[in-house]
Amino acid sequence: MNALAPAQVVWAEAGDARYPVHLGTGILDELGPLWAERAAGPSVLLVSDGNVPGLARRARASLQGAGLRVIGASVPPGEGSKSLAQVERLARLAAEAGLRRSDAVVALGGGVVGDLAGFLAASYQRGVRLVHAPTTLLAMVDSAIGGKTGVDLPEGKNYVGAIWQPQLVLADIETLDGLPPRELACGFAEVVKYGLLDGPELLELVEYWPALPGPAAELTGLIRRCAAHKIAVVAADERDHGVRASLNLGHTVGHGIEAAGGYERYRHGEAISLGLLAALRLSEQELGLDAAVRQRVAVVLARHGLPTRLDAAVATPAILEAIGRDKKADRDALNMTLLTAPGDVRLGVTPAPGRVEAAVEELRG
Amino acid sequence: MNALAPAQVVWAEAGDARYPVHLGTGILDELGPLWAERAAGPSVLLVSDGNVPGLARRARASLQGAGLRVIGASVPPGEGSKSLAQVERLARLAAEAGLRRSDAVVALGGGVVGDLAGFLAASYQRGVRLVHAPTTLLAMVDSAIGGKTGVDLPEGKNYVGAIWQPQLVLADIETLDGLPPRELACGFAEVVKYGLLDGPELLELVEYWPALPGPAAELTGLIRRCAAHKIAVVAADERDHGVRASLNLGHTVGHGIEAAGGYERYRHGEAISLGLLAALRLSEQELGLDAAVRQRVAVVLARHGLPTRLDAAVATPAILEAIGRDKKADRDALNMTLLTAPGDVRLGVTPAPGRVEAAVEELRG
Repeated sequence: MNALAPAQVVWAEAGDARYPVHLGTGILDELGPLWAERAAGPSVLLVSDGNVPGLARRARASLQGAGLRVIGASVPPGEGSKSLAQVERLARLAAEAGLRRSDAVVALGGGVVGDLAGFLAASYQRGVRLVHAPTTLLAMVDSAIGGKTGVDLPEGKNYVGAIWQPQLVLADIETLDGLPPRELACGFAEVVKYGLLDGPELLELVEYWPALPGPAAELTGLIRRCAAHKIAVVAADERDHGVRASLNLGHTVGHGIEAAGGYERYRHGEAISLGLLAALRLSEQELGLDAAVRQRVAVVLARHGLPTRLDAAVATPAILEAIGRDKKADRDALNMTLLTAPGDVRLGVTPAPGRVEAAVEELRG
Repeated sequence: MNALAPAQVVWAEAGDARYPVHLGTGILDELGPLWAERAAGPSVLLVSDGNVPGLARRARASLQGAGLRVIGASVPPGEGSKSLAQVERLARLAAEAGLRRSDAVVALGGGVVGDLAGFLAASYQRGVRLVHAPTTLLAMVDSAIGGKTGVDLPEGKNYVGAIWQPQLVLADIETLDGLPPRELACGFAEVVKYGLLDGPELLELVEYWPALPGPAAELTGLIRRCAAHKIAVVAADERDHGVRASLNLGHTVGHGIEAAGGYERYRHGEAISLGLLAALRLSEQELGLDAAVRQRVAVVLARHGLPTRLDAAVATPAILEAIGRDKKADRDALNMTLLTAPGDVRLGVTPAPGRVEAAVEELRG
C-alpha cells in the first residue's frame, strides 16, 4: 500500500443502535476527534494487546489530544485472553481508575481484543459505550461489526458473551501493512465468504484479488463492501434468530475442524477455508450448486495460502463430534447455511445422513 | 399466613419484552406447567442456594412433572456468591450438561441468586431465557422485576452485569413463611420506599401494616402494588437513563452506609432504612417536604425492627467517601432522588454543600 485512499463512512443500524463505520488509510489519528464528538463521559479504557504497541501509542495520543482521559490496558496476544478472568481483571482496573457509566471502552486490535473488550463494555456497570478500532482484516470485515462479543470456556468458544453494538467503528486500513501474511490470509477466508453470500459481482472481485494487502484504495473498497453486507444482515436480525445464520456459511464444518485440531493445527480463518469448501460440496448435493463455484473458490483460497486439503492428523470422528457439540446445532438436527448459487442462500438445511462425513472426507483430497 | 390467597397476575413490559408476574400462595408447584407453556427448549438450569433446599426440590419436581429436563445448581448462600467465579462455574456446568440457546435458567431464591443467575442467563451463549422464582420479600417487590442482573467486584457491588428481562416471574408468597424476621424486615424497607414513591394511599397501607408477614391475601395485594409500581417505572425507562433513577430513593446514602459498614454492620435493607430517613431529611431542606412524613416513616421502620439511628462505629467520612465512589454519582455532582411529597418525586437533585453530611450526622440522633 502506498497511495492514500479517501476515507469512507458506512452507517450501521441494529435494534435501537445506529453507528458509523469509518474506513480509510492513516485514519487511526482521527480516533480522538471522532470519538470526542460522540462521547458522553470524559474517560476511555483503551484495550489492546502486545501485538500492536505502536498503534496503541498512536491511539492514546489521538484520544488525549482530543481532551479525553485514557486508561491503558493491555492483554496477552492470543485466544487465551478471551476469558472471564481477563474480564474481571479489566473490570477491576476500570473500577480502580474510576471509569463510569457515561464513559467508554475502546477496543484496538483483532478479533480477540474486540470480543473481550466488547463483552467488558457490555457488562461493566451493566453496559458502557464501545468503540471498535479493528487492526486485522478479519476484525474489519467481520468481528468488529454487528455486536457479537464474548469470551471462551474450556467447554467452547464464545460460550459467555453478549450482543452489544459499538457506537463507532474506525478501521485504519494502513494497520494491515504490518500484519503477518498468515494473519491476512485468515481474514481473507471471511472475505471469500462474503463474496459467496453477496453474489457474482463481489465474488468476482474477490476471485481476482492480487496478493494481499493489495492497493489501498481498492482494499478499502473491498472491505467496505464486505462490511456493508454484514451490516445489512445484522440490521435485519441483530439477535441471530433468522437471517444472521447466513453468516455461518462455512462455519459449521469449519468450527468442527478448528475444535478437533485443538485450536492449534488450524487457525480460525484456515478452518473456515476448509469449512467453505465442505459447505459448497454439500450445497452441490443438497441444492444443486454448480460445482464450478467450488473449483473457483478452491483456486483463490489456495492462491492466498489457505488450506484446501484437510490434514490426516485431524480425525473425522473428532470433527463430527465437535460439530454435534457446537452451540449453533439446534437440538438434534444440524441446521446448515448452504447456497443454491453465489448470492442465493438457504438457511437451516439438514444434509442427508452421511453427507457431512463424506464432505469432510472429500477434503482430504 | 393460613388462608389461601387467589393467585394474581400482573404483566410487565420493558423494551421488546413482555412477561407475566404471578403472585399467590402455594403456586411454586405451578412453576413447571407455567414455564412449559412458554419454554422453547427442553432443558432448564435451576439455580438456588443452600437456604432453600426444600423449595428447590419442589421446583425441580414441578419442572420435571411438566416434562422439562432439570440441571440442578446450588451456590453458597450470601453476597459472596455474586462473583464472576460463580458465573464461570455455573456456565461450565451448563455447557457440560448441554444447555442450549433455546433453553432457560431458573433463579429460585433471594436477590443474590436472582442477580447471579440473571447475569448467567444474560451472558450464557450470549443470552438464554430467564425465569425468576423469588423467595424473599426483597426479591418479590424489587430485584426479580425489571431485569437488573449482576455480580460484584472487590471495588463495588453490581459492577459487572446486564439488563436482562425474565420471561416469567413466579412469586409464591408462602415461601416468606420460612424467612427469618430480620430478612423479612429488610424487604420491608423497600416496601416503605414504594409507599413513598407511589403516594399517600400505598404509604398509608404500608404505615399500618401489621407484624410481617401478615395475612396472605393482604400481603399478596401489597406485593402486587409494589411490583406494579416498579413495572410501570421500568416500562418507561428500562435502561436507567431517566425516571428509573426514582427507584434509588434512599439508596444514595443507604449504599454509602452499607459500604462504610463493610457490608457487615448493616444488611442492604437496614442501610436503606437509614438512607430513606436521610433522603427525607434532605427532601425537607431542598424541596420543603413536610417533616411529618419522616416522623411517620421512622415509626413504621422502627416497628418492623429496622434501624433508625446510625451506629457510631460507622464513621461519617467513610460514608461520604463511599457515596462519592458510588457508580450512581455522575461525575462530580451528586444527583439524588428526593420527594416534595409522597408520590411526588424529583430526580437529579444536588443538595447544598454540607447538607448530606449533616443529614448523615442527624441519623445519629
